[in-house]
Amino acid sequence: MKKKWLKSLKTNTPQEGFELAILLAQKGIEYTQPSESIRKKIRPKYSRNPDNLIAASEVIAIHYQTVAAANDYWKSNTKVHF
Amino acid sequence: MKKKWLKSLKTNTPQEGFELAILLAQKGIEYTQPSESIRKKIRPKYSRNPDNLIAASEVIAIHYQTVAAANDYWKSNTKVHF
Amino acid sequence: MKKKWLKSLKTNTPQEGFELAILLAQKGIEYTQPSESIRKKIRPKYSRNPDNLIAASEVIAIHYQTVAAANDYWKSNTKVHF
Amino acid sequence: MKKKWLKSLKTNTPQEGFELAILLAQKGIEYTQPSESIRKKIRPKYSRNPDNLIAASEVIAIHYQTVAAANDYWKSNTKVHF
Amino acid sequence: MKKKWLKSLKTNTPQEGFELAILLAQKGIEYTQPSESIRKKIRPKYSRNPDNLIAASEVIAIHYQTVAAANDYWKSNTKVHF
Amino acid sequence: MKKKWLKSLKTNTPQEGFELAILLAQKGIEYTQPSESIRKKIRPKYSRNPDNLIAASEVIAIHYQTVAAANDYWKSNTKVHF
Repeated sequence: MKKKWLKSLKTNTPQEGFELAILLAQKGIEYTQPSESIRKKIRPKYSRNPDNLIAASEVIAIHYQTVAAANDYWKSNTKVHF
Repeated sequence: MKKKWLKSLKTNTPQEGFELAILLAQKGIEYTQPSESIRKKIRPKYSRNPDNLIAASEVIAIHYQTVAAANDYWKSNTKVHF
Repeated sequence: MKKKWLKSLKTNTPQEGFELAILLAQKGIEYTQPSESIRKKIRPKYSRNPDNLIAASEVIAIHYQTVAAANDYWKSNTKVHF
Repeated sequence: MKKKWLKSLKTNTPQEGFELAILLAQKGIEYTQPSESIRKKIRPKYSRNPDNLIAASEVIAIHYQTVAAANDYWKSNTKVHF
Repeated sequence: MKKKWLKSLKTNTPQEGFELAILLAQKGIEYTQPSESIRKKIRPKYSRNPDNLIAASEVIAIHYQTVAAANDYWKSNTKVHF
Repeated sequence: MKKKWLKSLKTNTPQEGFELAILLAQKGIEYTQPSESIRKKIRPKYSRNPDNLIAASEVIAIHYQTVAAANDYWKSNTKVHF
């Protein structure tokens, strides 16, 4: 697991930051269960289970707080979402 | 999933910020379960299940913290809610 | 759901801020399950279920962090709670 | 529920702040289930259930973050805990 | 429960801060279930239950955020962990 | 448990910070269940259980917020992740 997978918490856009948050959430699972074959076996179950999907979305949300703070919420971006 | 769906974390109002938080919560689920047909199949179940509804509301709450911070809590807004 | 329900995150007192946090927690559920009749049907169950009550209290707590930050923790208030 | 129960988020000590966090956690449950008799009925169950006890402790922890921030972490206090 | 158990959120080291976070997590449980004999009865169960152990670790993590912020993350400490 | 295991919250890189967050999550479990033999017995179960894996990933995410803040989000790092 020593391979380098995380260069920085900076991203160019809020959407790329979201995708980085997803990577961080997955890495938390990978470090806890390093076997890819076990992870692949349980994936079909949990990706159809609402409890698990919502919990996964929560972990992403927590990491997104970190990534967004690391990027000063991309405040220099002058667009408005809606 | 490369399509652009998130332009900015800035919104004009606290309510639009809440709606953006909902979008972020949904996207966390979409990235984890990309199949729309599977998501549609499980939706009726979880949207009637109190555990899932409260958990979904929690994910929204976490994202709303991020969106609110990105908008400096809309502090220039001089209204008071109650 | 386009109706305006949230004017501001500012409130006059910490207690009104708590009541706003409750509103935000409820809205997270409403956006996820828009049908009022379904929400009414499940409410008696979940409001007697300790798991659900504590989870609802947690969502309120997360929103209260946001509302309190938006109000600078009502720091100009010079009272002490206890 | 209009009765005033929260004067301020300020407390004199970190321990009183903790006790305020407990009050906030309880109030989140009270607003969700206003009937005192129902709350009393479920209390014996959940106060012996590890899941519920740990979850209640989590809600307190989240509120304690808010109360501690509102008090600038009682930084003028020059003592050290250990 | 009026006995003084918390002098300060300040600690000399990050590790002592972690141990304070553990104390805060335990106190959240103690205030909710004041009977020591009941707590002792449920302890063997929950300390062998992965759900409970991970949840307890989460409560500690939330309190550690508070304690770390109260100590400015021990930033004057010039060591590096790894 | 008095042995020193945490020197600092500072790390040289965001990835080492993530690995420190994992250590903190594990320590939360170790302090709650000090017996290594019990922890080893339950590990095979929970490391194949999606609920547990996602919950463990959540605890890591919460600690990563703390570690990242302690390192000012490694902002002097000028790389971009994607």
